Amino acid sequence: MLELRLSQGVLLKKILESVKDLLSNVNFDCSSSEGLCLQSMDSSHVALVSLQLVPHSFEFFRCDRNLSMGINLTHLSRLLKCAGNDDVITMKADDRSPDTINLMFENPKHDRISDFEMKLMDIEAEHLQIPDTSYEATVTMPSQEFARICKDLSTIGDTVAISITKEGVKFSVSGAIGNANIICRHNISVVKPEESTIIDMKEPVTLSFPLRYLNSFTKATPLSNTVIVSMSHDLPMVVEYKISGAGHMRFYLAPKVEDDAMEAL
Amino acid sequence: MLELRLSQGVLLKKILESVKDLLSNVNFDCSSSEGLCLQSMDSSHVALVSLQLVPHSFEFFRCDRNLSMGINLTHLSRLLKCAGNDDVITMKADDRSPDTINLMFENPKHDRISDFEMKLMDIEAEHLQIPDTSYEATVTMPSQEFARICKDLSTIGDTVAISITKEGVKFSVSGAIGNANIICRHNISVVKPEESTIIDMKEPVTLSFPLRYLNSFTKATPLSNTVIVSMSHDLPMVVEYKISGAGHMRFYLAPKVEDDAMEAL
Amino acid sequence: MLELRLSQGVLLKKILESVKDLLSNVNFDCSSSEGLCLQSMDSSHVALVSLQLVPHSFEFFRCDRNLSMGINLTHLSRLLKCAGNDDVITMKADDRSPDTINLMFENPKHDRISDFEMKLMDIEAEHLQIPDTSYEATVTMPSQEFARICKDLSTIGDTVAISITKEGVKFSVSGAIGNANIICRHNISVVKPEESTIIDMKEPVTLSFPLRYLNSFTKATPLSNTVIVSMSHDLPMVVEYKISGAGHMRFYLAPKVEDDAMEAL
Repeated sequence: MLELRLSQGVLLKKILESVKDLLSNVNFDCSSSEGLCLQSMDSSHVALVSLQLVPHSFEFFRCDRNLSMGINLTHLSRLLKCAGNDDVITMKADDRSPDTINLMFENPKHDRISDFEMKLMDIEAEHLQIPDTSYEATVTMPSQEFARICKDLSTIGDTVAISITKEGVKFSVSGAIGNANIICRHNISVVKPEESTIIDMKEPVTLSFPLRYLNSFTKATPLSNTVIVSMSHDLPMVVEYKISGAGHMRFYLAPKVEDDAMEAL
Repeated sequence: MLELRLSQGVLLKKILESVKDLLSNVNFDCSSSEGLCLQSMDSSHVALVSLQLVPHSFEFFRCDRNLSMGINLTHLSRLLKCAGNDDVITMKADDRSPDTINLMFENPKHDRISDFEMKLMDIEAEHLQIPDTSYEATVTMPSQEFARICKDLSTIGDTVAISITKEGVKFSVSGAIGNANIICRHNISVVKPEESTIIDMKEPVTLSFPLRYLNSFTKATPLSNTVIVSMSHDLPMVVEYKISGAGHMRFYLAPKVEDDAMEAL
Repeated sequence: MLELRLSQGVLLKKILESVKDLLSNVNFDCSSSEGLCLQSMDSSHVALVSLQLVPHSFEFFRCDRNLSMGINLTHLSRLLKCAGNDDVITMKADDRSPDTINLMFENPKHDRISDFEMKLMDIEAEHLQIPDTSYEATVTMPSQEFARICKDLSTIGDTVAISITKEGVKFSVSGAIGNANIICRHNISVVKPEESTIIDMKEPVTLSFPLRYLNSFTKATPLSNTVIVSMSHDLPMVVEYKISGAGHMRFYLAPKVEDDAMEAL
């Protein structure tokens, strides 16, 4: 028996919106220790998506045994369109009907109740172990700023070089119409901490990435005011959106190799 | 001689928006007793649209003799796009030029006047007599809520079963991705009466309808805060939007027969 | 050496938006006496676009020698999408690299700096001398009103006849669905002068124009609250948007000849 009650249903809507372009069919894994998790390579096997909603992020959390639910995200996303932003969402799975899950949406006035029975799928997936690494350079910045820069620069070129130095973070693109550099300086806002750009580094790192993927990751912008970008020379970058008191959404993306070479010159 | 002066021109704009997907060419009938009326089957001959604007809903109403004006709704809708929401709209027909009507839009400051001469059409139409029936079950609910439910459920399936019982109204759909039920409970809000869901029934009724038509009807949502859905076993349902102190817009739709059979099981 | 610093970067964004449908590749001419100017026939060689930003409209203006910069407007428009509305925009050209210009966008907090290097083009263009004429009839009216009328009427026909008389300005269109006239009366608002419609005429003028071009010109509506339409019998009309304390954007369009003939009847 599984029963998860999320008082802010909008959170689940935002999560679906942030991954439905990258992923199609995925296993949601649930356990009493970890909560609700999702880990999957994107359909082109380039980026890795990792989501965790810890047990105490739910108003009610019951998970009698570890459970893996194969879900078609397009279908789930369509069902969630029927939930209001203020609705409480309850997800139930019953051992007696292992092929379906139940979703229930209740509006705050409790005069409208929607319930949905959704078919589950068998999805083969290998669970990758993601090592807990410390990164050479990390920038924490407003998530909307990061999203805007990735979108803006993709009108100029396909690949962005991201450089983290102690002065700030620089995004560079070159394309047929010219070259562009956007620099966000390290600056800590005491009044509005969520508007700070904070550099935390052991050594400067410059890596290049396809903007197409970064633009997909930034679909998660509504999940958090800030984004944390972590880079090391020989590792995939991590783009992390912390979900306030509830977990995180992380995207992993390997740097482009040819640019690594160029950078070494 | 016909002259109708509507101080809230936006009302005519909303009426056109609400029927222009269902109807193409229709007769507007005008008489001193009934006011301005429209009655027509939709182009696929499945649904019936019935509109009445009573004489006193006009600031000025003159109709010397009964008149039927054949109007291309696409053309009228295009002309009405030129009217501001605050404009006063005057419609004139003159016996000396029976093939055209004149529309005049005046903005509130009276420094902009637009006048249009529109060609009329000959439209053959039988006028159906709609009997005044009392229905077995009726639900009055917020029109936006009804519109949202019809829209939401059409992402899941094509046909909705609507059940009115004394507890409330239930909308059920099943499709390839699963099943859905949305229940709106009978509840009367004293503070905001327009947010009430009011059940009025002699006996429970369950009927099924194609969502495509319901979604067309809900284009009339801007006409009224509430919608009245009336159902009886052997009759078309009625979806009615009352136009405050001015008349009504009603849509009639026959239930799906196969579902009647299912319901009898 | 050229350096132009525009404190309201949004102005340059609006200018680009207003001409990018009409023009593709154009020369921006810069001189210490005239400031930044652009003059070009549209791609179909029907309308003439003329822009001037006078030197004192820039926060900083340096132009050592007359300079003509060939710019692909689609490219420039894409770069300007990366500028925030509040950004300060600086444009630099250096004699040592005559094939490129530099654009720099600084946000108000000065913690984000974007710089772009854009390639210039060789564009052959003849500079037309536009004589300074006095027109027979001129109407100054709210630019949004003018834009709305042109848009509304283009749903009815392709060609608008504009008549300026001492009572006001009349826009007439006829098409398959009927005829339309919109009259804006001469009226001076003391409280909100920008809402006035002011007629200034020596003699009445009626000329006809293709609405398609007028609708393109009204893309410049964000540049000014008012528009000035000037007409004379044997001259192209002028549609002018004054840029507050900074210059102007003017569009010239020849009247349709067949309608001139009709008007003479």
